Amino acid sequence: MLYPTPIAKLIESFTKLPGIGIKTATRLAFYTVGMNDEDVNDFAKNLLSAKRELTYCSVCGNLTDDDPCSICSDETRDKTVVLVVEDAKDVSAMEKIQEYHGLYHVLHGLISPMNGVGPDDINLKGLITRLQEDSGISEVIIATNATADGEATSMYLSRLLKPAGIKVTRLARGLAVGSDIEYADEMTLLRAIENRTEI
Amino acid sequence: MLYPTPIAKLIESFTKLPGIGIKTATRLAFYTVGMNDEDVNDFAKNLLSAKRELTYCSVCGNLTDDDPCSICSDETRDKTVVLVVEDAKDVSAMEKIQEYHGLYHVLHGLISPMNGVGPDDINLKGLITRLQEDSGISEVIIATNATADGEATSMYLSRLLKPAGIKVTRLARGLAVGSDIEYADEMTLLRAIENRTEI
Repeated sequence: MLYPTPIAKLIESFTKLPGIGIKTATRLAFYTVGMNDEDVNDFAKNLLSAKRELTYCSVCGNLTDDDPCSICSDETRDKTVVLVVEDAKDVSAMEKIQEYHGLYHVLHGLISPMNGVGPDDINLKGLITRLQEDSGISEVIIATNATADGEATSMYLSRLLKPAGIKVTRLARGLAVGSDIEYADEMTLLRAIENRTEI
Repeated sequence: MLYPTPIAKLIESFTKLPGIGIKTATRLAFYTVGMNDEDVNDFAKNLLSAKRELTYCSVCGNLTDDDPCSICSDETRDKTVVLVVEDAKDVSAMEKIQEYHGLYHVLHGLISPMNGVGPDDINLKGLITRLQEDSGISEVIIATNATADGEATSMYLSRLLKPAGIKVTRLARGLAVGSDIEYADEMTLLRAIENRTEI
């Protein structure tokens, strides 16, 4: 025997989380046993209720406990703009800046030729349907990550939507605020020069 | 709103774990929502059963689902030696090498004058009681971490036990196997020279 069964099982559960290996899982499991009863009960309850009560908005694909989600059903938001993101965490990141007041569309993934993920494997069909059914949408802002997969998805989307007469934009590429030119990579500097703005 | 309530609560639960900040907790919580039902149910169940079924062995303080633990109740083990460790994880680490066949004593902490943890705050009394009641124990091996607190605890224990005629030893200090002399710290090199062995 190495560990009693209950802790071995808990360690196994922790290792199923991303970025948590066997050593961290062991540390977390032992820590959990030492936590107070209430916190552990809450933890278990929160796990179950997050899984049970949360669903994906049938309109935009955002994570929500109400369908349609609070953003889609908010009458004060600008319904002419849709911002396309990879996952629901990105919606929260955008909402935090309190500057964007349009709608969202969550792709639940990115086109990734290297990993065999094609346009049909992500929530692209939902976006096309929305655009076909709702003629009020005049601009689609692509806000995928500035990675190879993000760029591939962005290119695919723009080629798909532009012929339909929809304005397609994407987030600016340039120097991150607070970053040093000295440490910026070449592609970032290239984009920063290309997209320079007048001051 | 930033996150729906169920996910906000789950994020809060994750942040209660050691070494998990708000960003990691958010990532884990969102990942959990995307996991399959069975894994999440198991996770919740394992949390509750680890907390409910595990207890500390009334003899040695090891984490166990049986009292006394499987080591204390194993008749084949050498009952003349007790190895003193800081916590239950250390018992598992020692058991993994399959070389030590004596008993254990888990302190559940270390004496730490800097943090105001004194001898009465850890499971030292249990060790003293064991030694008083069981005259068969002839050696205590101190296996606390090679840190300041570990050394303090080790010194305290040896001063306490030696006058009672018990042989007190501690784990060897020296170069970790596979390590470079070039990168070894001064204290480690000093101990390695002091405790050099004939080959």
